[in-house]
Amino acid sequence: MRIGALEAGGTKMVLGIFDEEGRLLENTKLPTRSPEKTMPEIIAFFEEQGIEKLGIGTFGPVDLRKSSPDYGTITATPKLDWRNYPLLKTLQEALQVPAAIDTDVNAAGLAEVRLGAARGCDNAVYVTIGTGIGAGVIIGGRPVHGLMHPEVGHMLLRPNPMDPLPRGICPYHESCLEGLAAGPALSKRAGADAENLPDSDPVFTLESDYLAQMCVNLIVTVSPEKIVLGGGVMHRTYLLDRIRKETVRLLNGYIQAPEITARIDSYIVIPELYPISGLIGAWLLGKEAEA
Amino acid sequence: MRIGALEAGGTKMVLGIFDEEGRLLENTKLPTRSPEKTMPEIIAFFEEQGIEKLGIGTFGPVDLRKSSPDYGTITATPKLDWRNYPLLKTLQEALQVPAAIDTDVNAAGLAEVRLGAARGCDNAVYVTIGTGIGAGVIIGGRPVHGLMHPEVGHMLLRPNPMDPLPRGICPYHESCLEGLAAGPALSKRAGADAENLPDSDPVFTLESDYLAQMCVNLIVTVSPEKIVLGGGVMHRTYLLDRIRKETVRLLNGYIQAPEITARIDSYIVIPELYPISGLIGAWLLGKEAEA
Repeated sequence: MRIGALEAGGTKMVLGIFDEEGRLLENTKLPTRSPEKTMPEIIAFFEEQGIEKLGIGTFGPVDLRKSSPDYGTITATPKLDWRNYPLLKTLQEALQVPAAIDTDVNAAGLAEVRLGAARGCDNAVYVTIGTGIGAGVIIGGRPVHGLMHPEVGHMLLRPNPMDPLPRGICPYHESCLEGLAAGPALSKRAGADAENLPDSDPVFTLESDYLAQMCVNLIVTVSPEKIVLGGGVMHRTYLLDRIRKETVRLLNGYIQAPEITARIDSYIVIPELYPISGLIGAWLLGKEAEA
Repeated sequence: MRIGALEAGGTKMVLGIFDEEGRLLENTKLPTRSPEKTMPEIIAFFEEQGIEKLGIGTFGPVDLRKSSPDYGTITATPKLDWRNYPLLKTLQEALQVPAAIDTDVNAAGLAEVRLGAARGCDNAVYVTIGTGIGAGVIIGGRPVHGLMHPEVGHMLLRPNPMDPLPRGICPYHESCLEGLAAGPALSKRAGADAENLPDSDPVFTLESDYLAQMCVNLIVTVSPEKIVLGGGVMHRTYLLDRIRKETVRLLNGYIQAPEITARIDSYIVIPELYPISGLIGAWLLGKEAEA
């Protein structure tokens, strides 16, 4: 069986064709333009490839309530062309195959739990820290939906007293995670592209604090068996160890689990399926899609 | 069938006997002394009542990993008599009936989801705000466990700039929810028992902020379909409306779900099974216990 996978992102669309065992047979990328321009290209690719099922991991927010008439529709995105766009329905009607959809980060989290850095865990959180911050929360082996889907990037945190930008830069929230700790906040504090700063720059001390606060709040809220941290900011690998140490320091012995107190290096980890966690997650969703 | 239910608390033990339909047939209370004194009393009650199954909702932390040799054992509690006490095992060996255990707040959360204020929800959070703060997080209809169990009381929050006690009073964590917003923090700020303060006291403005921040962080992390707020502090019913308004204000339109933006009064609610949510939850756990 040939299974189509789509990772729909704000700047690019990544398309893959997998077999049932997860071997990537074909793949391509397209720039994300308007739905009128981009969707026919996506449909043409999957039609040519002759897929039998389709899985989609998409940027959000997206309506994931199966009972909703708008199931699979992009909702309040700042990308105006895509607002209220029925992504799942359009692809299903054009391709006439069973299809499933989730957020890009839920798809990536699912992939890391099934096949990657959190293999064997029932409960884990995958976080991507880049231009924005998003998380896939996996509980009982499945991505959490609920009222909508998690939006962990907008968790409120305690501003660091040394932070010159303690309110952060989110247009919606004062001192939320994304506003304090996504790439643009780092660049704004430093007055330079964060990618060009040395590891010794003080912005990374703040960054470790904020990402450790996030880990603490995830731990006390959903008690994950592992936290997987990915995304562009985590390419700066030395951050990982600082975040681990700071998380242990902030928890201060309260959570007496040896996974945290003694083995934090295998508790807070980087992804194993980079850079295609999301695409592999879309394949998993597609494989399990029902007509 | 007669099903025993135990809500094991730090100051009292509440014991009930239910039938299969959930009718409460008998109940009693005992003060929580040492295990040597209290456990024989609990066992005697259940033996006399002739139960066939047992459910337990207990204060924590408690080991809930079914694969663990210490499954059902109280772990790092500050109540030293009970530290490392094998609660489940002792009751199972004495009573020889199928038994199940969870935290008191997970039990109460389960009860509110199945039969109370969050009926019909797959995902919901029950929070009790009293001498301490704890939460039962229900995802996919089941309490979340994971590495341990949630400890939502220790979520880190942003101190309110007007707070005379911005670090809170938790011995483990600076500015965590419980340290900022449980009853003792209110009393410490006010210099008087919080129960005797008028609604107009400024401590309740801070309290609304902190509990609203908690609601925001729960919403962005697990996307509950409802949040149920119980416990002694919530007896001050006017707080509820302030927390609702402040949650909407803090979210600032980011989560575009009408349940929040238009119907917050039926989204953040009080328990329906007070004061026996926990005992009913223990009954549910017992009813579903397997040998």
